[in-house]
Amino acid sequence: MRDDDPVLLGHGSGGEMTARLIGSVILPSLFPDGNVPPQEDAAPLSVSGTDLVITTDSYIVDPFIFPGGTIGDLAVNGTINDIVMGGGVPAALTIGLILEEGLLAGDLRRVLRAAGETARSAVVPLLAGDTKVVPRGKGDKIFINTSGIGVRRPGVLVPSAKSIRPGDALIVSGTVGDHGVAILSAREGLSFAAPVVSDTAALHGLVDDLYAAGIEIHALRDPTRGGLATVAVEWAESAALSFTLDERSIPVAPAVAGACELLGLDPTLVANEGKLLAAVPLEQADAAVAVMRRHPLGRHAAIIGRASEGVAGRVTMTSLIGGHRIVHRLPGELLPRIC
Amino acid sequence: MRDDDPVLLGHGSGGEMTARLIGSVILPSLFPDGNVPPQEDAAPLSVSGTDLVITTDSYIVDPFIFPGGTIGDLAVNGTINDIVMGGGVPAALTIGLILEEGLLAGDLRRVLRAAGETARSAVVPLLAGDTKVVPRGKGDKIFINTSGIGVRRPGVLVPSAKSIRPGDALIVSGTVGDHGVAILSAREGLSFAAPVVSDTAALHGLVDDLYAAGIEIHALRDPTRGGLATVAVEWAESAALSFTLDERSIPVAPAVAGACELLGLDPTLVANEGKLLAAVPLEQADAAVAVMRRHPLGRHAAIIGRASEGVAGRVTMTSLIGGHRIVHRLPGELLPRIC
Repeated sequence: MRDDDPVLLGHGSGGEMTARLIGSVILPSLFPDGNVPPQEDAAPLSVSGTDLVITTDSYIVDPFIFPGGTIGDLAVNGTINDIVMGGGVPAALTIGLILEEGLLAGDLRRVLRAAGETARSAVVPLLAGDTKVVPRGKGDKIFINTSGIGVRRPGVLVPSAKSIRPGDALIVSGTVGDHGVAILSAREGLSFAAPVVSDTAALHGLVDDLYAAGIEIHALRDPTRGGLATVAVEWAESAALSFTLDERSIPVAPAVAGACELLGLDPTLVANEGKLLAAVPLEQADAAVAVMRRHPLGRHAAIIGRASEGVAGRVTMTSLIGGHRIVHRLPGELLPRIC
Repeated sequence: MRDDDPVLLGHGSGGEMTARLIGSVILPSLFPDGNVPPQEDAAPLSVSGTDLVITTDSYIVDPFIFPGGTIGDLAVNGTINDIVMGGGVPAALTIGLILEEGLLAGDLRRVLRAAGETARSAVVPLLAGDTKVVPRGKGDKIFINTSGIGVRRPGVLVPSAKSIRPGDALIVSGTVGDHGVAILSAREGLSFAAPVVSDTAALHGLVDDLYAAGIEIHALRDPTRGGLATVAVEWAESAALSFTLDERSIPVAPAVAGACELLGLDPTLVANEGKLLAAVPLEQADAAVAVMRRHPLGRHAAIIGRASEGVAGRVTMTSLIGGHRIVHRLPGELLPRIC
């Protein structure tokens, strides 16, 4: 981007445009020496001999109260998930609020109660906070930043796309697209035959179960902005492998599938907030799916694809009717302010 | 506050109204069981036997580029300072961006270069980041959250207002009010005989020097929103002591004093971003001032008051002309969006 180019909404999509903004503006400015930290959900850090991971996320979801959750539980779940996807066991969170003048105290209470409950039920303390207020028209009711630290799991590989091996199976923990469709339906006042609610949830327990069962997790990511397909493309590029995905095996709730068809959306590009994608050795794939299906957040877990040698970074989808297509990451903005 | 009361700009002041919002809405909602973490600049946390501190701050300063700095260096300095005031040695920072559609790439570059340079010169890595974009009119160019972790200094007291003892001296590291007046002059297009620039700076080196000299620091705080007077009142209340401050000894740069007089502002209520207030034993006060004055950020350090038994929470100021007045924390909003 040139200096007089403006930031556009699509730069917040989590897809191709976000990658360009980060690659051409943000990273070169922050790290002009090229010494750029790896781009994963959470960053590793060793302090006084203790291996930690740290992460940060800002939430700007519109509406901030939506079917299945609020921006408060979304933020807490999202940051817990980033720590977990980075190979950490969550240890503490911080919460920073940017409130727009005029926000009702009752709405703020509802959001913060949800955040507090979510943190308590995940047994992760909210230890530090900050509150700012902006004038009307300079914000949008409430934005939340949650940052967090976790302790790296001892004795296991730190999950990373670079650890994916040819032959690995790709597993998704459940139906895709629920969060994005729930937000869109709330925003646009759409209603479908079956109500669609956000899947916002903290995935630490599901991941604990996988490790407890001895599953060797090569890569782990929660497919939020950009959806499952965007993560698959990023992984295939990082690992320099080809992926083949089978659309018939990707779980999509009927109401979400119907809504996506109606709205012309591809559910594999729609955001999730309580799902994970894992790459595991093929011989452990069935066991991993079985472990997930025993957990309430993994009941619809499924093997959806394979990694293999081949064109580096190419992801191919076998469609519902048996055709093949190349999968691309989300190009620009699909649904602004989804999280 | 009742559920149908709106959040007002004054709730972001850092003064009395902020304390009410936090006390009546934020903490009871996040922690309904009353199990509230202590309200200091940074929170202590022990992980696998390592003593850490964590902190978070969002920055919404307007204008985001101002005399003496940008929102980028302000955010990095501010979070480093919160870690240091909490008794930590900074180990890592995160940076979360909320960009408004239309922000120019060149302005974003300028802000992030300043953030990156500031972090590098303080030798604190920026390890994790996040970028969100909001539509025009739903934000204001750029908001930044910086969160951070530090390692607790071994073998020293964690600074806390509760550790202030009767007889302690109160020391400020330099002139007060510079940041607030710089922002106000930029925002309102005011110009003064001598230019006023923000004092934004990272204070870890100054604090290192105090510890290295064997100064026993009881309490430590950077007087940002609400200024020096608000911190003094908060400390006196937490410590259940009386403070007497001497206005004649509080350093104020002539240009800042002039601007405050013109604008009807009390410089002890105006925000600073590169100053600290310390409570130390009286017998070490002169040594502490001497140490500070040898550091570039402490050249105007001065003893400005004393703690004593007496009415708990009362702060009295001896004025320039020798009178006495009770000092109150900042009641509402003085200068919105100062940091």
